[in-house]
Amino acid sequence: MTIQLYVDLRSQPCRSLAIFLKLMGIPHELQYIDLFTGEHKKPEYADKFPLQVVPGLKDGDFYLGEMVAIFRYLTTKYADKIEDHWYPKDMKSRARVDEYIAFHHTGTRGKCVAIFVAEVLAPAFSGKPVDQEKVKTDAENLKQSLDKIERSFLKDNDFLCGKEISIADIMAVCEFMQFTVNGRDIFKDNPKMKGYMDRVKARLQPALDEINAKLYAWRDSHAK
Amino acid sequence: MTIQLYVDLRSQPCRSLAIFLKLMGIPHELQYIDLFTGEHKKPEYADKFPLQVVPGLKDGDFYLGEMVAIFRYLTTKYADKIEDHWYPKDMKSRARVDEYIAFHHTGTRGKCVAIFVAEVLAPAFSGKPVDQEKVKTDAENLKQSLDKIERSFLKDNDFLCGKEISIADIMAVCEFMQFTVNGRDIFKDNPKMKGYMDRVKARLQPALDEINAKLYAWRDSHAK
Repeated sequence: MTIQLYVDLRSQPCRSLAIFLKLMGIPHELQYIDLFTGEHKKPEYADKFPLQVVPGLKDGDFYLGEMVAIFRYLTTKYADKIEDHWYPKDMKSRARVDEYIAFHHTGTRGKCVAIFVAEVLAPAFSGKPVDQEKVKTDAENLKQSLDKIERSFLKDNDFLCGKEISIADIMAVCEFMQFTVNGRDIFKDNPKMKGYMDRVKARLQPALDEINAKLYAWRDSHAK
Repeated sequence: MTIQLYVDLRSQPCRSLAIFLKLMGIPHELQYIDLFTGEHKKPEYADKFPLQVVPGLKDGDFYLGEMVAIFRYLTTKYADKIEDHWYPKDMKSRARVDEYIAFHHTGTRGKCVAIFVAEVLAPAFSGKPVDQEKVKTDAENLKQSLDKIERSFLKDNDFLCGKEISIADIMAVCEFMQFTVNGRDIFKDNPKMKGYMDRVKARLQPALDEINAKLYAWRDSHAK
């Protein structure tokens, strides 16, 4: 039975998994859930995914939420299709990926989402002007996280967790790319991050641009 | 060589790992780092742990930050000492633990920390009165997370991820127990959570009370 991934491709974690599935050649179907209209809170979805989170994975009668849990599930289930570097089996190499993934929740995603909500989503949904003071603080917080990434994960590495790309890089870059919508240059004081992102993006093509189609359409409508 | 865990036992993630190590009978040494004086940001620590996070694990010349990464590392390294239910090898059972752990970052810990900072840490460090409006909003946010935990993870289970205790339960309960310090009753509208916490606490003794000694001392000094 083909696995189903419930997604809203405007969401960073949804794109991360959709890109990975496509790159790995894992047979799957995408099912669309509209976060903006709250489809994830309606009984049809919430009965299966009581955390009401998107993305959600359906594998037969097994339902699983939370992007990083789904990534780990997929790397186990499809171990024969996935090269080791994506989530290394070596204990210490894997621990480094796990360290980044743990950092990602509040260190990368938390900081990026704060800015994106304040600058794009909150004004769009409330009709109120952007709270520039909040954005300024949020941007400083993100800068601190980027500095940490540069001096730790990227210190001696081309990719976050070593010489080769891993699932950590997909998560990070999809988060950073959310700012495609409003054109914010989050790397203006972190040029190392810019080079890093270009490197990862190149490795994720052509899946990246295919899955990002909705993100690019959002950018185009936002610019009007 | 004995592993070293760098901890400040006033911190929830530090206690979680220290309790686990003790319960499992894994030989280790605790090294104390004072978060309140910023010891984790000084070169002696930050050179080894560039994320400047506590807890931190030293295993020979390998340094690892982030509680959940350390938990995963320990369950792999000491697989022979750790009963399977703590982090099951079965793919779907493990995925459920991974799902909770992912939820934990912002769903449990993020919500608990917001209240604890506003109600205990911020007033203590700034000398300013508690921002009651913020605490009220933060408490409502936590209530929503507790509701989610009740209707998902605990729906048909005694423990978060099944019939038996797992590392997820240690993480959750150590977070909830932080309110021992100021006596906030976070479960007043979630009685199911109260029963759950009592069940987990009983399973974690005597390690729980031993490692919690600093938490209890903090409670006693806070009450004065």
